[in-house]
Amino acid sequence: MSDYFTKSLELHKKLAGKIETHVKTEITSKEDLATVYSPWVAEPCREIAKNKNTVYDYTIKWNTVAVISDGSAVLGLWNIGAEAALPVMEWKCALFKNFSGLNAFPIVLDTQDTEEIIRTIKNIAPVFGWINLEDISAPRCFEIEERLKAELDIPVFHDDQHGTAIVCLAGLINSLKIVGKRKEDIKVVVNWVWAAGVAITKLLLKFWVKNIVVVDSSWTIYKWRDWLNPVKEMLTDLTNTTCILNPNWDGCIKGGLAEAVKWTDVFIGVSAPWVLTSQMVESMNQDSIVFAMANPTPEIMPDDAYKAGAKIVATGRSDYPNQINNVLVFPGIFKWALARRVNNITDDMKISAAEALANAVENPSPEKIIPWPFEDGIADLVAASIK
Amino acid sequence: MSDYFTKSLELHKKLAGKIETHVKTEITSKEDLATVYSPWVAEPCREIAKNKNTVYDYTIKWNTVAVISDGSAVLGLWNIGAEAALPVMEWKCALFKNFSGLNAFPIVLDTQDTEEIIRTIKNIAPVFGWINLEDISAPRCFEIEERLKAELDIPVFHDDQHGTAIVCLAGLINSLKIVGKRKEDIKVVVNWVWAAGVAITKLLLKFWVKNIVVVDSSWTIYKWRDWLNPVKEMLTDLTNTTCILNPNWDGCIKGGLAEAVKWTDVFIGVSAPWVLTSQMVESMNQDSIVFAMANPTPEIMPDDAYKAGAKIVATGRSDYPNQINNVLVFPGIFKWALARRVNNITDDMKISAAEALANAVENPSPEKIIPWPFEDGIADLVAASIK
Repeated sequence: MSDYFTKSLELHKKLAGKIETHVKTEITSKEDLATVYSPWVAEPCREIAKNKNTVYDYTIKWNTVAVISDGSAVLGLWNIGAEAALPVMEWKCALFKNFSGLNAFPIVLDTQDTEEIIRTIKNIAPVFGWINLEDISAPRCFEIEERLKAELDIPVFHDDQHGTAIVCLAGLINSLKIVGKRKEDIKVVVNWVWAAGVAITKLLLKFWVKNIVVVDSSWTIYKWRDWLNPVKEMLTDLTNTTCILNPNWDGCIKGGLAEAVKWTDVFIGVSAPWVLTSQMVESMNQDSIVFAMANPTPEIMPDDAYKAGAKIVATGRSDYPNQINNVLVFPGIFKWALARRVNNITDDMKISAAEALANAVENPSPEKIIPWPFEDGIADLVAASIK
Repeated sequence: MSDYFTKSLELHKKLAGKIETHVKTEITSKEDLATVYSPWVAEPCREIAKNKNTVYDYTIKWNTVAVISDGSAVLGLWNIGAEAALPVMEWKCALFKNFSGLNAFPIVLDTQDTEEIIRTIKNIAPVFGWINLEDISAPRCFEIEERLKAELDIPVFHDDQHGTAIVCLAGLINSLKIVGKRKEDIKVVVNWVWAAGVAITKLLLKFWVKNIVVVDSSWTIYKWRDWLNPVKEMLTDLTNTTCILNPNWDGCIKGGLAEAVKWTDVFIGVSAPWVLTSQMVESMNQDSIVFAMANPTPEIMPDDAYKAGAKIVATGRSDYPNQINNVLVFPGIFKWALARRVNNITDDMKISAAEALANAVENPSPEKIIPWPFEDGIADLVAASIK
C-alpha cells in the first residue's frame, strides 16, 4: 500500500494540476486578434446584452460545470478545508471531461458558512451551465442545495447525495437478483446520516424498499429519540417505523450499529473506516449484502466481510471488484440535462438511471453487480435511460 | 465593417466557448483510477491539510489565474452585465494561455456591489494563484483592488489599470524619441477618470511626466472644483496644479476637452467613441501624439487624426498600426510573478516593463511605436525586465 501512497504523491507533484485550459481556436494573425478581441468581440457582447439567453450560444456556459466544495466533508477525511479538497475536485473535473466531454472547473470555498456559500455560488453562477456541489457536510448540504435550486436558474446537483444514491441503487437491484430476495421484503441498514446516507435512504424508499433502519455515528434513528436535527427528525417518519404507534416505542430498533445490523439483509455504509466488524456481518441474515463505501478506507475490508459470511461485497474503491462510484452516473446525467437545459433531476429520473445501469450488466454475479466505469458508452446509456 | 460583425458572431457561435478544459494525464485503467481518484487521491489531500502551502505543488493553483469581471465597464460598451461580459473574459483567458502558457478561467459576477464582490472573490480565491480584475467600473475598481490586495495572500491585479498604463507608457517613451521631446517638458491630457485614466496618470507622474491635465466626462479636474469624488480629489493634488496656490485658481485649465487639449503635446484617450474632434487635434502643439484607445471605437479614427496634424496615432485596435493593448504586458508580468510568487507589482516594476517593451522596437517610427503582440518572446522579454 505504501507504494501507492508514494506513487500518488509523485504523480500529483509531476502533474502539478490535473486539468488545464486550452484555447479552441488559433490566434496567430492580426485578423484573428481583431475578430476575437478588440474590436469585434464586442458583437457577441452586444447580442448577449440584448438577449441574455444567447449566452448559451456564444460562450462556454452551455457545457461548463462548476465543481464546488467547501472542503468540509472530503472523502472519509472529513473537514480538511478548501485547499486540501482541491486534488479531489480536480479529479472530479477530469472525470467529467473524460466520461462526458463536458468542461468542469473546480471552485473551493474559503468559507463554511451556509449563507455565505449560497451567496458566493449565486454570484459566480453566470459563467456556469450547471452547479455540482461536492463534499459539503450534512446537514448544511441539504439547505444549500435546496436554496440554490430555488434561487438559481441553472441546475444544482449535490453529487455526493444523488450520484451515490443512484449507483448504490443500481448495485442493490442486481444484488437482489443474485440472492433472490424481493425489494419489498429486505431489511436494510444505512450507516450514518450524512449527505449520501440521507439521499440513499430517500431513493430506496421511493423504490419501495420499505424496511430501513438508519444509524448515526452513535445510535439508531427512531421516533421520539432525543437530540435529532431536522433531517434526522424527518427520517423518523420514514424509517424504523414499527414503533411509531406502539406504547414505549416498542418494536423499533434501538441501539448501536451492532443492534441495527442483526438479522438484516443489506448493510449500506457511507460512514467511516472499520466501523463494521466481522461479528456484525456474522449476525446478518443468510446471503447478506455489504456495501462498505467509506473512502478511502471502507467500513470493513472485502476479504473480512466475505469470511464473515457476506454473499456480495462492494466498496467505493477502484482496486476491488464492485466499485460503487458516482463516476458511473454523473457524466451521463449532466450530459443529458445540459443538452436539454433541464433544471431538475426528479426521483423517477434517478430510478430510471439506476435501472439502466443495473441492466447494463449482462450476467450479474457476486463479483460484478455494476458496470466498470471504462466500459464503452456508460454515460450515453445513462443519458438515454432518462425519460 | 459589417462583414466583421457577421464573421465575429459566426465564429463565436461555431466555437460556443473559446476555451475548454483538458485532462493532463490518461485515466484509462483501474490502476489510473485508483491512483488519481479513490482511494489514493487522499494522499495529496492529507499533505495539503498538513501544510497548506503544498497546494502549490499538488494542484493547479500555481499556474491558474481568475479573470474576474462584474460586467460594469466592458470595453466601451460599459455596463452590459455579467453574461454579456463573458465573451471578453473568455478571450482574455485565451490570450493568457496563448501568450504565457498560464491557465486562466473566467468568472463573471452576478453582483455589482463592492462589498459583495470583495467577499465573493475572497471566498473563491483558494483555487487561484492570481486574481486578474477586468472591466470593473471606477471608482469601485480602486477600492476592490486595494481591499483584495490587503486581505488576500495571492496577487491581485486590475489589468485595465496597470496593464493599460504600462503599455501606454511604452508607446509614449518611443513616441517622444520620434518627435524629439523630453518627458519633463510635454503637456499631456488624459481623457476620462475611469480605471485606466487614473492608472495612466499615476504611472506617468511616477515617470516624471509632470504636466498633466485630466478631464472627466464633462470638465477638467482641478483643485477646488465642485463635485469631485475621492479619486478625482486625490488627482487635484497631482495634476493641473499651477493654480493651487493662486488667487481665484488662476492659471489652471478650466473647461471641457476642447479647452484642455489646446497647446498640448499628447492626448491620451481612454474614454468613448468620437469625443476627440479634428478641430481639437488641430489645436494641439506641433508633432502631436494621439492615443485614442477607446474600444471598440476610438475617440477619433486614425485617418482623421493624421489629417488634423497628428504626428503619431495609436489605438486599442488590432486592425490599425500601433495597437496599445494589454496583451503586450499581462502575460509577461503574470508569468514572472506567478513563478516567483510575488504578491505586489510596484511602480518601479511597471516602469521597467514599459521601458523593456519600448526598447523591443529597434527603430521606432510613427507607424511602429510598440511591438506587435505576435512577435516572438514579448512575454519573456517583459518577464525578464522586472527586477
